[in-house]
Amino acid sequence: MSAIFSITKHRIDALNDGVFAIAMTILVLEVKVPDIADRTSVSALLHAIMHHMDVIIAYFLSFTMLGLFWVWHHRLSSKVREINFAILIWSFVFLSLVCFFPFAAAVFGRYVLAGNVGGLLVYLPTVFLILLSQTMYFRTAMKNGLLHAEVSEKEQRSAHRHNMLWTGLFTLSCVPAALAAGLTAAITVAVVAIGFLWRSFAWR
Amino acid sequence: MSAIFSITKHRIDALNDGVFAIAMTILVLEVKVPDIADRTSVSALLHAIMHHMDVIIAYFLSFTMLGLFWVWHHRLSSKVREINFAILIWSFVFLSLVCFFPFAAAVFGRYVLAGNVGGLLVYLPTVFLILLSQTMYFRTAMKNGLLHAEVSEKEQRSAHRHNMLWTGLFTLSCVPAALAAGLTAAITVAVVAIGFLWRSFAWR
Amino acid sequence: MSAIFSITKHRIDALNDGVFAIAMTILVLEVKVPDIADRTSVSALLHAIMHHMDVIIAYFLSFTMLGLFWVWHHRLSSKVREINFAILIWSFVFLSLVCFFPFAAAVFGRYVLAGNVGGLLVYLPTVFLILLSQTMYFRTAMKNGLLHAEVSEKEQRSAHRHNMLWTGLFTLSCVPAALAAGLTAAITVAVVAIGFLWRSFAWR
Amino acid sequence: MSAIFSITKHRIDALNDGVFAIAMTILVLEVKVPDIADRTSVSALLHAIMHHMDVIIAYFLSFTMLGLFWVWHHRLSSKVREINFAILIWSFVFLSLVCFFPFAAAVFGRYVLAGNVGGLLVYLPTVFLILLSQTMYFRTAMKNGLLHAEVSEKEQRSAHRHNMLWTGLFTLSCVPAALAAGLTAAITVAVVAIGFLWRSFAWR
Repeated sequence: MSAIFSITKHRIDALNDGVFAIAMTILVLEVKVPDIADRTSVSALLHAIMHHMDVIIAYFLSFTMLGLFWVWHHRLSSKVREINFAILIWSFVFLSLVCFFPFAAAVFGRYVLAGNVGGLLVYLPTVFLILLSQTMYFRTAMKNGLLHAEVSEKEQRSAHRHNMLWTGLFTLSCVPAALAAGLTAAITVAVVAIGFLWRSFAWR
Repeated sequence: MSAIFSITKHRIDALNDGVFAIAMTILVLEVKVPDIADRTSVSALLHAIMHHMDVIIAYFLSFTMLGLFWVWHHRLSSKVREINFAILIWSFVFLSLVCFFPFAAAVFGRYVLAGNVGGLLVYLPTVFLILLSQTMYFRTAMKNGLLHAEVSEKEQRSAHRHNMLWTGLFTLSCVPAALAAGLTAAITVAVVAIGFLWRSFAWR
Repeated sequence: MSAIFSITKHRIDALNDGVFAIAMTILVLEVKVPDIADRTSVSALLHAIMHHMDVIIAYFLSFTMLGLFWVWHHRLSSKVREINFAILIWSFVFLSLVCFFPFAAAVFGRYVLAGNVGGLLVYLPTVFLILLSQTMYFRTAMKNGLLHAEVSEKEQRSAHRHNMLWTGLFTLSCVPAALAAGLTAAITVAVVAIGFLWRSFAWR
Repeated sequence: MSAIFSITKHRIDALNDGVFAIAMTILVLEVKVPDIADRTSVSALLHAIMHHMDVIIAYFLSFTMLGLFWVWHHRLSSKVREINFAILIWSFVFLSLVCFFPFAAAVFGRYVLAGNVGGLLVYLPTVFLILLSQTMYFRTAMKNGLLHAEVSEKEQRSAHRHNMLWTGLFTLSCVPAALAAGLTAAITVAVVAIGFLWRSFAWR
């Protein structure tokens, strides 16, 4: 059983890398080749691409986000020795959100950059859930004693506190955007942010 | 020969993980970014996305299905030591159906959720064939003595019985949907379901 | 140098598996979800999907082709110990054609099944070039002494003869289709086929 | 820490191969299946595909570019022993540009081949940035002493000089195209090219 699940760790890493590679590449499908009336006009093409610049910037921004998630997840998962059922669930929740990210990025590129703050109400919750699922992934590994022996208890705590700190800071930065969905939403977001930050500092 | 095929096991696992990673990510391409008339209207965008909610739910549902298939297949394939020609065939049948799954999921998301039960006549048979090909994959490995030595005969039987049990239960749950294709279809499905369940309990 | 290139072998296998996994999955994108006027009509949906059946069959056929290429290439590449520049070139020619295959398969599904034999003039040459690049890949490895030591000379020759035999037989089977492009094309194809078959039998 | 980052090397290679495999396969999505009025007309289909020939050539050209990048990057990264934060950044810059390449290739295929030199102003800068990020990747590894011990200092310098030489030669070849964007652009490009070439020859 344990042997089987430790193989799972190796295989789920491969699945993970595959999903990230594809999600990153799919982002570029949103950068559409412009269609211009006069196919041979240099200035029309350059104008169309300049007009496109916001979508291109959104692509690099979203790529950076996925890159950060990958590095963060990699650093957490490299501390994990073995996988049990609960960690498997969190891994798949994480993966399903990473796969969902290109949709959120597309909404971001098409609406938020056009000044429609409503698009953030898809983008930011997706990012929040990715951060949350990573935090829960590591917390579960820690609580179930499935980390590598060489990861000291102090290191574990520090990593978990960092996870909560960043999730909290990100959530706090979402309060202004949440106002677009009403005051109740903004207050809820603020409370969640404070919860994470408080847990991060109080947690031992 | 044997050495070559045992490498195949390793390589076919990689192919398998790649296919799953892509199938999972392709699911999200069905979640189209809504096109709204007034690009800057927050409420119009939120309304459009709310309208979209069923497609988003269908995405997470189909992702969960693929996740379950992956975990199940991984647990079966981790018991397999070596691959022969028959297992190779079943592996590819399985893979071709996994690759086909995003199409079935798209039909599901666009029609079943809109109340058209006809879409189930694509989705459910695809899932059934995936379950069947996994069951046959493991059965072939078992019959040809290609499992790892440390997998006891009792474990083998238990795994195979489980495969048949779940395939049977799933088939049974399809009887109501099969009624949409007529009484004969429903009876056929019921007979197949009972066949699997009977084999699962009677099999030693 | 040699150490670096033997790593390349491992990495190019990974690239290879990735490309196959994606090409296989991309095939399904040609199977479009049908658009029907009355979204809730069960019979209209089933009718539309039945109409679609040829595209679905084409999908499984093309998947089988890719599966055969993968298995064949895997059996050849598992005999290769090291990679030099010439083999690298043939590997990439092979990969570029595998990536191109989904386009050929789409032409096949949309035109050949609709009775337009012209589509074969894209599909069959692509398959031929895939077979040719595999044959050349192995021939180059053999001529440069880059196969594993445990592969006996007899095995090498047998594998190469098989490659040429199958390429020849496939080419021969293309003669009728080549007639659609004129008599000269058909004769050229026949000559190439006979060349491969002759080499296969005469080769020592 | 060091142990964790040396795993990263292995994992980032996997991510890298995945991204290349997908970018290569995505290129073919630009080769659209032609739509012809009379579906059964052989000559109309062949005519449409001949008309398409430039897009097909562009596909193989762009594939070759990605193949060259892959081989080059592989040869550089196989000399790297360990990864630090700066190298990680350059790896992701490189990956984001590789993922972006299919867009540049699509612009190339649709406009440059139709005689619109403006498309080069997307394609060439993308290629330049890919070359630059590879050069910086290796330079960073060299400056931080993160190369394998068996790579002699002479080999390191030679590799770095080659990187700069090729980047310089490529940049020089872009001067005519840069003229399309005005004289200032052409002069800037020429200066950058000379800078690289000078560094390549003067560097020790």
